[in-house]
Amino acid sequence: MTEQLVRPAGIRPRSVDAELRRRARAVIPGGMYGHQNAGPLPAEYPQFMRAGRGARIWDVDGNEYVDLMCSYGPVVLGHQHPAVEEAAAAQAALADCQNGPGAVLVELAELLVRTVGHADWAMLAKNGTDATTTCVTIARAQTGRDRILVARGAYHGAAPWCTPRPAGVTKADRVNIDHYTFNDLGSVAASVEAGPPPAAVVVSPFKHDAGFDQELVDPGFARGLRDLCTRSGAALILDDVRCGFRLHLGSSWEPIGVQPDLSAWSKAIANGHPLAAVLGSDAYREGASRIFVTGSFWFSAVAMAAAVATIRSLRAEHAVEAMDRLGRELRAGIMTQAAARGIEVSYTGPPAMPYLTFAGDRNHEQASAFAAAAMRNGAYLHPRHNWFISAAMTRADLGRVLAATEAAFAAVGEARR
Amino acid sequence: MTEQLVRPAGIRPRSVDAELRRRARAVIPGGMYGHQNAGPLPAEYPQFMRAGRGARIWDVDGNEYVDLMCSYGPVVLGHQHPAVEEAAAAQAALADCQNGPGAVLVELAELLVRTVGHADWAMLAKNGTDATTTCVTIARAQTGRDRILVARGAYHGAAPWCTPRPAGVTKADRVNIDHYTFNDLGSVAASVEAGPPPAAVVVSPFKHDAGFDQELVDPGFARGLRDLCTRSGAALILDDVRCGFRLHLGSSWEPIGVQPDLSAWSKAIANGHPLAAVLGSDAYREGASRIFVTGSFWFSAVAMAAAVATIRSLRAEHAVEAMDRLGRELRAGIMTQAAARGIEVSYTGPPAMPYLTFAGDRNHEQASAFAAAAMRNGAYLHPRHNWFISAAMTRADLGRVLAATEAAFAAVGEARR
Repeated sequence: MTEQLVRPAGIRPRSVDAELRRRARAVIPGGMYGHQNAGPLPAEYPQFMRAGRGARIWDVDGNEYVDLMCSYGPVVLGHQHPAVEEAAAAQAALADCQNGPGAVLVELAELLVRTVGHADWAMLAKNGTDATTTCVTIARAQTGRDRILVARGAYHGAAPWCTPRPAGVTKADRVNIDHYTFNDLGSVAASVEAGPPPAAVVVSPFKHDAGFDQELVDPGFARGLRDLCTRSGAALILDDVRCGFRLHLGSSWEPIGVQPDLSAWSKAIANGHPLAAVLGSDAYREGASRIFVTGSFWFSAVAMAAAVATIRSLRAEHAVEAMDRLGRELRAGIMTQAAARGIEVSYTGPPAMPYLTFAGDRNHEQASAFAAAAMRNGAYLHPRHNWFISAAMTRADLGRVLAATEAAFAAVGEARR
Repeated sequence: MTEQLVRPAGIRPRSVDAELRRRARAVIPGGMYGHQNAGPLPAEYPQFMRAGRGARIWDVDGNEYVDLMCSYGPVVLGHQHPAVEEAAAAQAALADCQNGPGAVLVELAELLVRTVGHADWAMLAKNGTDATTTCVTIARAQTGRDRILVARGAYHGAAPWCTPRPAGVTKADRVNIDHYTFNDLGSVAASVEAGPPPAAVVVSPFKHDAGFDQELVDPGFARGLRDLCTRSGAALILDDVRCGFRLHLGSSWEPIGVQPDLSAWSKAIANGHPLAAVLGSDAYREGASRIFVTGSFWFSAVAMAAAVATIRSLRAEHAVEAMDRLGRELRAGIMTQAAARGIEVSYTGPPAMPYLTFAGDRNHEQASAFAAAAMRNGAYLHPRHNWFISAAMTRADLGRVLAATEAAFAAVGEARR
């Protein structure tokens, strides 16, 4: 039984993917770039994907998987969600990129302001990096200060001020960036004291650094950070790009009652359509109106129509609750499987955005073996990045995932012998 | 006749637009942001647009215009181009944002490399600013140098290192940026000498600064710049975001035979779908493979499918030639109208991207009166930004534009009396 499970479960040879990778190496630096570069992943991962529907996805060779990565976050209602795709198609039949925004921009801004607790206004953009960078720029314009505090190791985008890899980044790009430790209020206070008054403190809803156990926010830290920002006149910027609309519709810190001054959104707000948003309070409206940020496609109507439909569907389908419930079932199933085999794991992060690590796992070797076996058995998850559960996942999908993780634990157990 | 023409030609009251602006002021800082903010434009300009088809566009109150702005550049084949929209819809029916790019990424990268003279490889992104910033980052990674030279007054995007408005920008953001004068090779040489060896010189295909007469590139300047960059080991970066695929498919400097090392593209490459590209030569491939840039939607397949269809249609329809021919006819018509009224104008820029100014026009008053009257008569152009002609413009469209500009010159003549 075990042996059968650890063997590839009917996976098709990746000949189309291999040929595309060969062609890509000729015309794309390093063969691929960015967070979707499959190069560093186990060989079981396809580089190129073909289609998606609900919680199921297919690679270019026709292999089917249950999707536990959701395109690294954007897909929250499942692929090809009917209400979202209908809204997008209806807008596309009129126009997308015009000489001015469509009426839907106002509709979306009003909906965001009604939905998100701390938001008095909205600005739309394309990338998560646009949103985090715009938050920082607004904070500087409003406060007249330069310095920005970010948590050590946190990811806030891929512009020179924040990209995790130093190539091409100058010292000047980071001269106004200082660091603190997530969940350590004393480290923030020390960083505030160590230099000129900061323009902003940037914080993620929880510590979701890739490759490490995830760490939920201590509500006392969040409240203390809010107080510290208020007292020091710095903007509290919540980077909700990855978590936004997965944990709570009113912002990811709404459940703990902490309101940032500015927040950055992208990924899930239009269920995969390209959009980002900056939301802010009235105290930062003036600064926001003085900066100049823009993009050729920042006013395009199709992604905004998709966002309106996404937010309405999230509410109508009780999607946040569904993701939380499915996430708890997945966790229970995986922890039971690990315990039955005596494999010591950490399963961290919120139920809807979990991450699995193995005790004493040097260089992510066990995690890679686990992920590779899960992929062979039809569950698309990731060895070094938090997973994402979509609201489209059914009981059948979850059953298939747990069959795949059972096989994956067996593979880890085999590798340990 | 003249009096009839200068009166609004049946323009509908902008009650829908006015109500949307009122609502926008509550939920958007300053009521609108970025390059599509209609606030600084004459009252004739709607803020919100409803639809487009070919070279015709409609505002939210149902007023129809011939489009001479093309969404500030993206629309090159006309709105709702059938081949482009069919390709986008076919891809959208499969998937857009997935856990990896679609096969279409390779198809597009190969097509770009085949089409653009200096390109050995391609990277895709979302904003023009992504593309220019990535070029700069690659140049720094490849050369190990920091300093970047840009032409005084040139627009290369809206990130802190390049945005034209200082609010929220720190000194450190610009400490590695130095300036030269477009078409003045001596000024580039002086700037190179004035500091450490530069990583790159960034240049636009022609001088298209908003609000000033446009200036075509002196081929001697371009060739001299190429030599200077080669000798000093700096990357020559061509910012083809605004002009790309409007002047020549092989890059805007292909006609003068000057090949940059890196080039930035966006706007027209997918006929309005959100996409940007960085193209480069083999000499910069290694640097490009070492940097980390990415975005949640940089691998999305729909805009890439639209780009493939756009490039094929541009070629099949001889679109560059069509835009040039229509642009020449527009210029001839406008110059004849101006001369007949004894109004001294400058009509600059390439025929497909022209710009009109009036002699002695302080604060763009005549240009504003001209643009307002053109708008009242159904031609959507801009008083302080170059215009864009799409390949979808018909003889009938051109006739309507020239009737509108005739009325607009009459309005300028009236205002001068």
